[in-house]
Parts: sequence; structure tokens; C-alpha cells
Amino acid sequence: MYAVILAGGSGTRFWPKSREQLPKQLLKITDHGTMIQNTLDRMTPVIPPENTWVITNEKHALETCRQLEPMGFCPSRLIAEPIGRNTAAAIGYSARVLSESDPSAIMAVFPADHAITTPEDFCELLLSAKTVAESNRLVTLGIEPLAPETGYGYIKKGQALKNDAFKVDQFVEKPDPSTAEKYLKEGGYYWNSGMFMWKVSTLLDEIKTHMPNLHAQLDALATNTVEAKGRYPYRMLDESGKKVFASLESISIDYGLMEKSNNTAVLPANIGWNDVGAWTALEDVSEKDPRGNVVTGSVITIDSSESIIQGDSKLVAALGLNNMIVVDTPDALLVCPKDRAQDVKKVVEQIKLEKRPEAISSITETRPWGNYTVLQKEANYLVKRIEVHPGESLSLQSHEHRSEHWTIISGTAQVQIDGTSHSLTRNQSIEIPQRAKHRLTNSGKSPLIIIEVQLGDRLDENDITRYEDKYGRA
Amino acid sequence: MYAVILAGGSGTRFWPKSREQLPKQLLKITDHGTMIQNTLDRMTPVIPPENTWVITNEKHALETCRQLEPMGFCPSRLIAEPIGRNTAAAIGYSARVLSESDPSAIMAVFPADHAITTPEDFCELLLSAKTVAESNRLVTLGIEPLAPETGYGYIKKGQALKNDAFKVDQFVEKPDPSTAEKYLKEGGYYWNSGMFMWKVSTLLDEIKTHMPNLHAQLDALATNTVEAKGRYPYRMLDESGKKVFASLESISIDYGLMEKSNNTAVLPANIGWNDVGAWTALEDVSEKDPRGNVVTGSVITIDSSESIIQGDSKLVAALGLNNMIVVDTPDALLVCPKDRAQDVKKVVEQIKLEKRPEAISSITETRPWGNYTVLQKEANYLVKRIEVHPGESLSLQSHEHRSEHWTIISGTAQVQIDGTSHSLTRNQSIEIPQRAKHRLTNSGKSPLIIIEVQLGDRLDENDITRYEDKYGRA
Repeated sequence: MYAVILAGGSGTRFWPKSREQLPKQLLKITDHGTMIQNTLDRMTPVIPPENTWVITNEKHALETCRQLEPMGFCPSRLIAEPIGRNTAAAIGYSARVLSESDPSAIMAVFPADHAITTPEDFCELLLSAKTVAESNRLVTLGIEPLAPETGYGYIKKGQALKNDAFKVDQFVEKPDPSTAEKYLKEGGYYWNSGMFMWKVSTLLDEIKTHMPNLHAQLDALATNTVEAKGRYPYRMLDESGKKVFASLESISIDYGLMEKSNNTAVLPANIGWNDVGAWTALEDVSEKDPRGNVVTGSVITIDSSESIIQGDSKLVAALGLNNMIVVDTPDALLVCPKDRAQDVKKVVEQIKLEKRPEAISSITETRPWGNYTVLQKEANYLVKRIEVHPGESLSLQSHEHRSEHWTIISGTAQVQIDGTSHSLTRNQSIEIPQRAKHRLTNSGKSPLIIIEVQLGDRLDENDITRYEDKYGRA
Repeated sequence: MYAVILAGGSGTRFWPKSREQLPKQLLKITDHGTMIQNTLDRMTPVIPPENTWVITNEKHALETCRQLEPMGFCPSRLIAEPIGRNTAAAIGYSARVLSESDPSAIMAVFPADHAITTPEDFCELLLSAKTVAESNRLVTLGIEPLAPETGYGYIKKGQALKNDAFKVDQFVEKPDPSTAEKYLKEGGYYWNSGMFMWKVSTLLDEIKTHMPNLHAQLDALATNTVEAKGRYPYRMLDESGKKVFASLESISIDYGLMEKSNNTAVLPANIGWNDVGAWTALEDVSEKDPRGNVVTGSVITIDSSESIIQGDSKLVAALGLNNMIVVDTPDALLVCPKDRAQDVKKVVEQIKLEKRPEAISSITETRPWGNYTVLQKEANYLVKRIEVHPGESLSLQSHEHRSEHWTIISGTAQVQIDGTSHSLTRNQSIEIPQRAKHRLTNSGKSPLIIIEVQLGDRLDENDITRYEDKYGRA
């Protein structure tokens, strides 16, 4: 059995913790691990990490590998999409890739950013789903509804099949409140969780029948690939492959295939599932204090109840709050009532409209070689913490407008300046003069951390001339 | 005419902007200048800065001088109290000091942290008050009440005197709502503003009559003084003076003297006065946006109204807020409904109970030689921005547990390390080895700014051995 994790989230509703460059699945939203780590972890008893594929946007490929590799995930099983084209394209493409190595594979599909509070039940269910999938069904996990939720699509069950599954009678759009109420009362309706199980061969056949245009492109997607340069050899499309991918219709697997196929089954699931769609979902998946608050970080609450207060390193004092959301991050803060949780996307839209960086990136920026955090930025100087992963190198570069002073905090740095090489360890420092050709390499086995002080009349990321780069950026 | 500014505020209700080390009067609460700067500024047409005395706690003396000296205030006219002993002690002591140089002086008393929106009317009023004071009255400025405010003491006017003043019939405690309503309806009642005018000789005579114990100590307070070392030669008590001051009764001038004297007058004042007692006062003294919000800093408001949102460098997104207070600072954030503004002191109490630093100090710490800001603190390193005022020096010191790396951002540094002197300017850096005896001096005429990276197994302010210090801290 194989898993494909769909990790294409855009991360607007968990702003300011999530950003375009760091969507929800890459964040620790609940107590343990990031959401995608939890997704990988919970299926491990049934599907080992080495049988797992991940499909994600290229800009999240490195961070995804960084998070999953220590858990046994193989970076060459990450498929990078050049742009988002919804779930039908992502699922079709990964199925085609998976069929290369194992045409008879059973393939399970999971969104990367959902929570499941009873993973044992979930694993048991996967084994049942596998049995149903083996009879050439497209199986979808249907969540037993607990409330008249209007935010989900519904699945109406039909005739009973073997192994507790049912034929799908109908996929139903997101209902209005009274319809949702009716579904709950009547029974036989399930929330569409976006989790599926099928034989790769069944799926590809069904795609051929119902989405022939997509099917026609799958061979091109499978062959026009290259391995990423750098630390993680994940799978990318080459230039022609990217063109093909861009030409695909942007449509969900539900609309594109499931609603049309006559071959679908639903397996009722009671697994403590939550799609973690907005800040208010924390109330379902986190521990609460005695007054019903979900609190993390350094927080003082006085006379506050039923609120979601997510602090960071700074002290947050919540006085007299009820049903409020407070989310603090180093560069952005959100305050809103809980009933406005869905409108956080409006905040993100507004920030984008104002062309502010806080919608896209946070103060810690990920790079192929590691990451950096701006500690202070003023007109004529800038202080950064730089972390370089073991074995990685920044490009050979120079700056027209600034000099740099580096102090090594931990690890071993190989610093090349105008052709001369210097080896530095903790408590040593060095100056990179303006216009000097230089390169920083972590030549040790532990992370290299340096504090950089930049001085100059122009301090921006664009003042960089690259001469060589192992990640193809020169 | 002389002014005495009472600057003894403790700064709990404007947390997190105000801290024990940086009370309200030293903060920019409204648009222009800090509150004490505004207090000095608005009286300038009538009382020149060189005729102004300031009495404040010793721990705020340096910052007060730093703020007021550029406006013409003479630092030797700052009187530092070793501890707070309420207004009777502060006023009696300053009157005694003032009488040394001018026994016939007219003395006006102003709290350092109030707002006045029509300073022209205020200046005119000071001239009237002077005339009344010349007839040996203790004059108090009584604010025409605009609302049935229960937070102030009231003054009931009696028989009319010359120059629009009235004899005081009675000082009245803070009333309950219905009494306050009655006062407003009846008229003839004024808010006790804490602003006074009198001849120094009248005041000292009255203190002799009504507070003989205080009067008996004033000579000792006047003689047991020393000049502060360092940049500002403000006036401090010596060890015996401090003992005397500590022995004084802690009582307000209202209870101790005004309520007992038969010689008091009230001058009705219509000067746009506000005591700026809590965050909600910003609504009276600041400009509002079209939806009634008082907003500063980098703030996005969506569907928000009647709220007070004080951002700092970070982006604050306020979504769907109504009648809320949000105050963000680099190390602490407050969120509460407006009707809880008075309870911010409960937050400060709670923080003190938890022995957290955020009640006392902010991330920028003031020192006799300048200030420093912690940019990042981790277990084994710490990054600081250090600013040294021109001509100032840190103590000659060493550290047992850490080395330090300095990069000069601006200004000229004289760095002494184990007896050797180094002169450094912008873009130069130097290492201070562990245990080396070192000293940093700003030998230039502009501020010296350096970035310091500390590395060590213990990084706290107590790991410092001082050998020499121009501020008497060695």
C-alpha cells in the first residue's frame, strides 16, 4: 500500500502563523510536530514512510523534505508542482508516477493538513478501505457528521457493499444550514474528507474514461522530469513538463472524477477528523484551560474565557477576553472575535493589496542551504541570524553596497574571501569587505549558526551578484 | 515665577508601554513629545524652562534629564527622590529648595503626566493664578467638569475672591455616580487637577502650621544633598538625607495641607485638561479615524470601530474589533475590552507576582551611559544593540563567563582591552576575550552604536566585575 500526501495548501486562514511561503501543513498547529509530519506519522503502522509520496508546490519542496526526511521519507518521492492545478491534476500525476514502479499499487490519498484525534481507528479503517479498493472501487472516507456543518461537501450513501462500505448515491455540494440540519437528522450522509483509496490502475482507467484530456497528458508529465539539485533530489518537471502541467485544467478530483464515476464507494469513518480550516478548529484539536481557552506561548489570562490565544516568545496579556482570537508572531499580530475566523483571509487579501511582505513571508526566510532571520533592520545596518545546514553552501557572491561582519555562534564555517579560505568555529569572527567575492559553507556535521551584521548604504536581498551556486541560482 | 513638575508616576495603567522603569510621563502617549516634555513645553510662554524644577524618583532622573535638557531645562534643577513619599513630601522638599535661591518666589506645581488641549487658555490662567497667589492664597486649578466623573476628587467653590477665583468651601472625596451627577447638575464643583500656585513663603508657612513634622525635616533635606556623578549633575540626597526622606509621612498635599488650610482658593479652569489615567484617555486627546479608532503604528483595521490600537514596528491586523484595546510593544502585548482599561493594573500585579521582567523593564534598558536593546537571547548567545551617549563610558569591567564581539555601526569608539587602547569607527569590529578587563567609551560627538554578540555558558547582567565606574557603580 502506498500513500500520496496532497500538500498544496496556500495558508491564508491561519495567518499570521501561516504565510504563502509557509502554509499550514508545514506548521506546528497542535502540540506535536507539523501537520504534514503528523499526517505521515499517523499512517506509519499501515503505510511505511518509504512508501509515501508527497506532491507539493516547488516553493515548499525543500522545507517539506527537511521536515519529513528524518521520519524516513525519501526525498526522491517528493513531486514538485510548478503551480497549483487543484487535486485532479495532483492525484492523476502522482498516480501515473506511482504506477511506473508498481502498476498494481494500492494508493491512499491524504490531505497534508488535517487532524485525526484517534489514529488507531484511522489505521484500522485504512485496512478496511484497502479491501474495498481491491475490488476496483474508488473509495472515499466519509466522516460521520457530528454537527450540521455547512463548510463541507457531503456524500449520500447508497446500497451496502462488503466491508462496511456503501455505494455512493450522490456527492452533495456544501449545504445551507437547514439542509445540513436535515442531513444530520436523516442520517446516511457523510462529510467528504478528501481522503481516498484505490488501485492506481482503477484510478487511471477512470481518469481515462471521465477526464480524457488529463489522461492524455500524464505520460508527458511522467517523462519530462528532472531531479532537483542540492540537498534533496526531489522530482521536478523540466521546462516542457512545466508547460504541460500549466495547461491542465484546474479542477478538483471530486468534480472532475468522483461525481461522474459509477464506481465509487464510501466507507464511514469515525476517527476524530478535523480539517483544521480556521483558527477556531484549535478548540476541537487542542487541550483547553479550565475556562475554555486554547493557550500556547507566554500568556497571562485574567478573566478571559473561550478564547484562542497563541503567543510566541513575547508576553501576551489577555484581560477580560471572551470568544476572541489573538495570534502573535514575531512580525505580525492578529486580533479578532472568533466568529470572524473565516474572514482572516480578508486580512491576507488586504495585506497583499498593500504589497506588504507579511502575507508572503515571515521574518525567518527559508533558503536551499538553510534559513535566516532578520533580528533588526535599520536604514544603514541590518542584523541577521543565519543557519546553514550541514554540508550546504551559500552561493559564491559579492555585494556592491554593503560589507558584512560574521560571528560564529556554533558549528564550523569554511569562509572563502577573494580566493583565500578561512576555517572558523564558535567565538571567531570575520569581515567580508564590500565587493569581495565570498562564500560561506558549513563544513561540519552540526548546524552552522552565525550572526551577521550588514553595513551599507543599500541593504536589500537584491544587492547580490552570484558567480556559482550549487542550487542553480547563479 | 517658577514651576515644579511632579514626576513620580509609577506607570502601571499604561502597561505595556509604560513600565516601572519607564513610567507614563517619560512616554510619547499622544503625537508630539513625551508627556513631561509636553508639560514643560506648554508653560514656556509663562514660565521659562530655566525656571523649572523637576522632582522625580532617582531611577528616572537620567532619562528625565535626557528628555528635558535639549528643551532648556537645567539638570541641576532636577531633584531626585530616593523613594516615593507622595505629593506633600515632594512639594514641601522642592519648595524648600526653591526658597534657598528665591525666598519670595511664586511656585506653580504641575503633575508631569497630564494633557491640556488648549495651552493658550492654560497660559492665560497661570497669569491669573499668579495674581491670586500673590495675595498669599494657596491656589488650586479646578477643572470645570464635563461629565459625572467618579475618578476624581472634587472642589466645592465658596465665596468669590478677586480675579475670578473663589475661596474653597470644601475638598470632596471621589464621589459615587449619583453624587457626581448631582455635582454636575448643581454646578460650583470642580475637578481637583493637582495643579497649584502659591508663594513659596506662603506654602512653607502653611506647612509649618499644618504639617509641623514635615516642616521640621525640610532644613535637613535642603542641606544633606550631593550632586549626581556623570553626565547630569542633578540634585540627590546623601545618605543622611535619604534616611530623613524615608522617615517622612507618605501623604498627599490635598489631605496633608489643602483640606486643613483656611487660606485656599480655587480658580476655575477650562483648558481641555485630561489626566490621561488609562488607555481610554487616548480617545479624548488623540485624533480618531472615521470609525472612531485611535490607531498608531503599522495597523490594518477591517470592520473595526471605537477601538484603541497601538502598534509598534510589527504589523497588527484588527479584524471585527469593537470597543477593544490592543497595545503591542516589542516584548509584551495587551488585549482587553475598553471597559477593562482600569484593570490593566491587575495585569501588572499578576506579572509581578510571576516575577516576570515585563512589569519593570522593557527590552530597551536605560543606563547612565546610554541604553541597550536585546535583539536575540538564546541559551549560549545573545545579540544586543548598544548606544553610548557622546562623552560617556561604560565601567572598566570583565566577564567570567562570556566573550563579546563588537561591530561599530556609527560613531567613534575608544575600546580599552587589558591596558591597550583601540580606536574604532563604523564598519570595524573587535573581540573582547573572556576575563579581559575592558572599557567602552564614546569618544566622538555623535551617538556611538554597536552590535554586540555575547557568547558564553552563562549570559546574564550579573556576570560583571566592575573595576572603575564614573557613575559610582564600581
